[in-house]
Amino acid sequence: MSLPTFDDVHAASERIQPFVHRTPIVNSSLLDAWLGHQVFFKLECLQRTGAFKLRGATNVLAWLKEQDQLPERIVANSSGNHAQAIAYAAALFDIPATIFSTQNVSRVKAAATEYYGAQLKLFTTRPEADEAVKMAAEEPGTLWIPPFNHAQIIAGQGTAALEALQDLKQVDGVFAPCGGGGLLSGTLLATKALCPEAEVIGAEPLAANDAANSLRTGEIVSLEGPAQTLADGAATPSVGDLTFPLLQQLDGFYEVDEVQIAYWTQWLQHLLKIHVEPTCAMTMAAVVGWLQERPQPSKALVIISGGNIDAAKMQQIWSTDYLDQPPVL
Amino acid sequence: MSLPTFDDVHAASERIQPFVHRTPIVNSSLLDAWLGHQVFFKLECLQRTGAFKLRGATNVLAWLKEQDQLPERIVANSSGNHAQAIAYAAALFDIPATIFSTQNVSRVKAAATEYYGAQLKLFTTRPEADEAVKMAAEEPGTLWIPPFNHAQIIAGQGTAALEALQDLKQVDGVFAPCGGGGLLSGTLLATKALCPEAEVIGAEPLAANDAANSLRTGEIVSLEGPAQTLADGAATPSVGDLTFPLLQQLDGFYEVDEVQIAYWTQWLQHLLKIHVEPTCAMTMAAVVGWLQERPQPSKALVIISGGNIDAAKMQQIWSTDYLDQPPVL
Repeated sequence: MSLPTFDDVHAASERIQPFVHRTPIVNSSLLDAWLGHQVFFKLECLQRTGAFKLRGATNVLAWLKEQDQLPERIVANSSGNHAQAIAYAAALFDIPATIFSTQNVSRVKAAATEYYGAQLKLFTTRPEADEAVKMAAEEPGTLWIPPFNHAQIIAGQGTAALEALQDLKQVDGVFAPCGGGGLLSGTLLATKALCPEAEVIGAEPLAANDAANSLRTGEIVSLEGPAQTLADGAATPSVGDLTFPLLQQLDGFYEVDEVQIAYWTQWLQHLLKIHVEPTCAMTMAAVVGWLQERPQPSKALVIISGGNIDAAKMQQIWSTDYLDQPPVL
Repeated sequence: MSLPTFDDVHAASERIQPFVHRTPIVNSSLLDAWLGHQVFFKLECLQRTGAFKLRGATNVLAWLKEQDQLPERIVANSSGNHAQAIAYAAALFDIPATIFSTQNVSRVKAAATEYYGAQLKLFTTRPEADEAVKMAAEEPGTLWIPPFNHAQIIAGQGTAALEALQDLKQVDGVFAPCGGGGLLSGTLLATKALCPEAEVIGAEPLAANDAANSLRTGEIVSLEGPAQTLADGAATPSVGDLTFPLLQQLDGFYEVDEVQIAYWTQWLQHLLKIHVEPTCAMTMAAVVGWLQERPQPSKALVIISGGNIDAAKMQQIWSTDYLDQPPVL
């Protein structure tokens, strides 16, 4: 499969318009005053299903529909935002969907996935779930929608940045978190076409830094085991062969420790009054690192990827009071 | 001073339009499916300064300006949303403001109040701060803006419900939390004029139930000491002589325990992806109590009063996992 281009992102944005919200962009005048720069946030946590993932999922299905190639059934393996997006998108196209996940999936995520109309099959371990989805995908008429390593998924995820750049016109830097790299590489395609002078910068948890290691070594490196990080949306074991060549074109990449992830989750929830996931709040550590190198007032765009956080993570995030230390540059 | 009327709310809505956001109204399709009813949320946490309080504060000053009676300086006593609203509103009208508060005010609230341009005077105890503001208010040219017991404050706070009812047209019930009663009595004025068939219902923490006791006994009763509740915005010692006669016209009033307050704060943050204060999330316990008595599908409006929560409160709210128990009716 060939790499997606900006044309794919642009086509995706027209294609998915009936299915997704054009999410709002907000800023915090207090944060801007403290930083001495402007930071704009594209709120994909207010997207349907609570995350940007619906963009890629609906794009794949709408693209197949254009070619009259919609499948009879859909399968996917995920315990997170991808599962909910697939469940919701499959229902939009009236296709039965089955999500393969593990028994420790939170009850709230399971309830949402089932509410959107998908069947949920639970397994003891992740490898068992992954094996089961592979077998299910062999049945004729079945489409297995991967979470990021698919040209139309990448193109769909890039539509968040495309919309934001249409609205903001000019920015100096665009920031997104990196899990498998779907959102970040789609963001790169959109930005380099619409605002070529802007830098595109990624962020990843230091505790799950496979993408940083891959960029350093020039080949795709996997995590050695399950990662322990607040930024669970960025704990993906490795990037994909479609996302990696795009990630190699980034202008910068930051690895963020767990204290910084908790710090920025608290501050973005407080300042924006939005229930922001650690995975995207993390990106603010990259923004600050980047701004510190820029003497002139600059304009950053951050893609806030989602707002699905379980109670255990919220407890961890708020266990130390970081609101006592304002982010003054 | 005479009681405010709907005409005052209507005049306030025209008057404050240049100064406040017309905040969005959202709902959760998942919550609506679980409840079997529709619940709409007016998001005053996305108001400037993070709470509805700016409506009353700007209304007082704009109303004085119409009569060419703006003061030379403004004082107020508060450690919460009222302080930030007064600081912001005073700056809009270019009037110096001083906020009298206690030393335990959170650093983040202090920083915001000072960022908005007000001077902050800190005292060891609340009675000392209250005494100091009273003395400061005696200086000629000084206006002391109270948090709720003022006709133009009540009228201003009522504009949130007015906007929401203009947008939604018809609802069956309107819900707001009760601290001093400014928001709730303004909401009553707006609703009884614009949607007279709708019931207006208040909610208060069981641990700070002075308003419920006042309504039961028919006279204003004060709390005996400082209240321990997650819903700090509703921990006001007593309602006022302007709000009480309006509160007596309510169609219902609920007292909510701390578990219910934490439960609904978790669920509203999760479902709406909004950083909702316990003080307003509490109101959902009243909504559910009311809906349980209504066999026919009904439409409720909840005024989400604010989103300013300190880290200690967030830690308390998330210390137990309530997301494991979906709010299914």
